[in-house]
Formats: sequence, structure tokens, C-alpha cells
Amino acid sequence: MSAITLKYKSDEEFVAENESGNKLDIDMLPSDQKNHQSPMEILLSAVTACAAVDIVSMIKKRRKTFVDFTAEAEGNRQDEHPRRFADIHIKYIVTSPDLKDEELERIVDLAVSKYCSVAATLNSNITHSFEIVR
Amino acid sequence: MSAITLKYKSDEEFVAENESGNKLDIDMLPSDQKNHQSPMEILLSAVTACAAVDIVSMIKKRRKTFVDFTAEAEGNRQDEHPRRFADIHIKYIVTSPDLKDEELERIVDLAVSKYCSVAATLNSNITHSFEIVR
Repeated sequence: MSAITLKYKSDEEFVAENESGNKLDIDMLPSDQKNHQSPMEILLSAVTACAAVDIVSMIKKRRKTFVDFTAEAEGNRQDEHPRRFADIHIKYIVTSPDLKDEELERIVDLAVSKYCSVAATLNSNITHSFEIVR
Repeated sequence: MSAITLKYKSDEEFVAENESGNKLDIDMLPSDQKNHQSPMEILLSAVTACAAVDIVSMIKKRRKTFVDFTAEAEGNRQDEHPRRFADIHIKYIVTSPDLKDEELERIVDLAVSKYCSVAATLNSNITHSFEIVR
């Protein structure tokens, strides 16, 4: 069971707190006034981070050299309301001198499809790609 | 289209940045070491905030007195991996001297079912309840 409490700050600004007291600020202000991510951006951040942890962990378990990691995620919304994410694409970029393409392909596939709880909770079509930086 | 970039801080800590430069810290550390919410908590925060904005906006459009707003959300995960949220329950608590029960019921229903993009992107069974504080 996970639980959060959401509190009102202003009509477009809210703060969510989990049971450990960790806070998450959320706003729906226009981009030039924004201080925090909007709910759909937060959703995209959550699904990307969810798989990221498992990817890094699996690279290290296979005793490959891990130098750095970045991911770029894009979500495409349906035109009609409620404008859900129909498609999400995530590109994982790993810096490693000795990780092989087929190893990372397998790792990313496992992380996104089998382990990531957030991805499993979404009804979007999630695709992924990867790049290894030497 | 929404886009974010995720960067590695440590094996259990990541930071996600949107196109306006708004950052979201995410960690998967144990609860006594956590500084930020985990991906599944973040997902719960996002779906709760998504409907919250529309609820507050609809209360004000109906020219009802708005004093305060809180929401409590719980997500129940499946036992089997990938442990998705099977059920999410959100309780919305609005402080208002003149908002009627049937008005808030209709507003919450519209916000969650028709307007909330995050809820429409989830495959969980989402239920909601509400309370009016006078």
C-alpha cells in the first residue's frame, strides 16, 4: 500500500506528501511561470525513473563498468479530452566502455516490461530505445 | 507532446527535468533514508493533483465559497511483479460553507472521469469519495 496526502497552495499549485514526510510540489501554471512539473510531466518522470533504477542495478550486477546514465522520455497525448498519453517513448543512454549492445537491450527490455511497476500501471503504448556511449 | 530528461545522481537517486527546466527529484531509498518520493508515490501524487486542479476550478466557477482543499490517496499494489497499482482510492476533502453534497459529487466525478489526463492514462481501478467540511 502506498499513500499520499495532497494540500492546496493556490488554484494551480499543490503539494503532495508521502508517509515518510517527503514532499512533491506540483503546479499547472503556464510554462513561463512554472516552478514545478505538471501532473503529466510528473507521470513521465515517474515511469522513466522506475525503469532507470533497475537498469543501473542490472548493469552493475553483470559487473560491467558503469560511468553514467541519462534517459529522454516523450509522451504523445490524444487530441480528445481527457488527453491521455497514447504513446510514450523512452531512450536510455548509458556510458560504459564494456557493456555490449545485446546486454543493454536485454536489460532495458526486462526493466521496462517485467520490473517497472509504473509502466505496468499505464495503459499507454510504451516503446524504448537505447544508446551506449563509449 | 510532453518531454523530460532523467539524470543519474546515485544508484537509487535520479532527477528529472522538463522543457521549462523544472526539476523533480526521485529516490528509491528505504523510508528512513528517503529525501524524495519514489516513482509509485509520485504516480499517486500526479493522479491526485490532476483532478484537484479541476475540482477547485469547478467549485469557483459555480461561485461557491472555497476555503480549503485536501486529498488523501491510497494505492493498492498487486502481489505479483511488476506490482502495478490494481486499485487507487482518492478521498477529496473540501472546506466550504455553501457547497452542496450533490454539487461536489458531480464535480469530483467529472474531474476524475472526464478531465483528468493522468487518470485516463492509468489502467488501475480508480474510486473516489468526498467530504465537505463546514
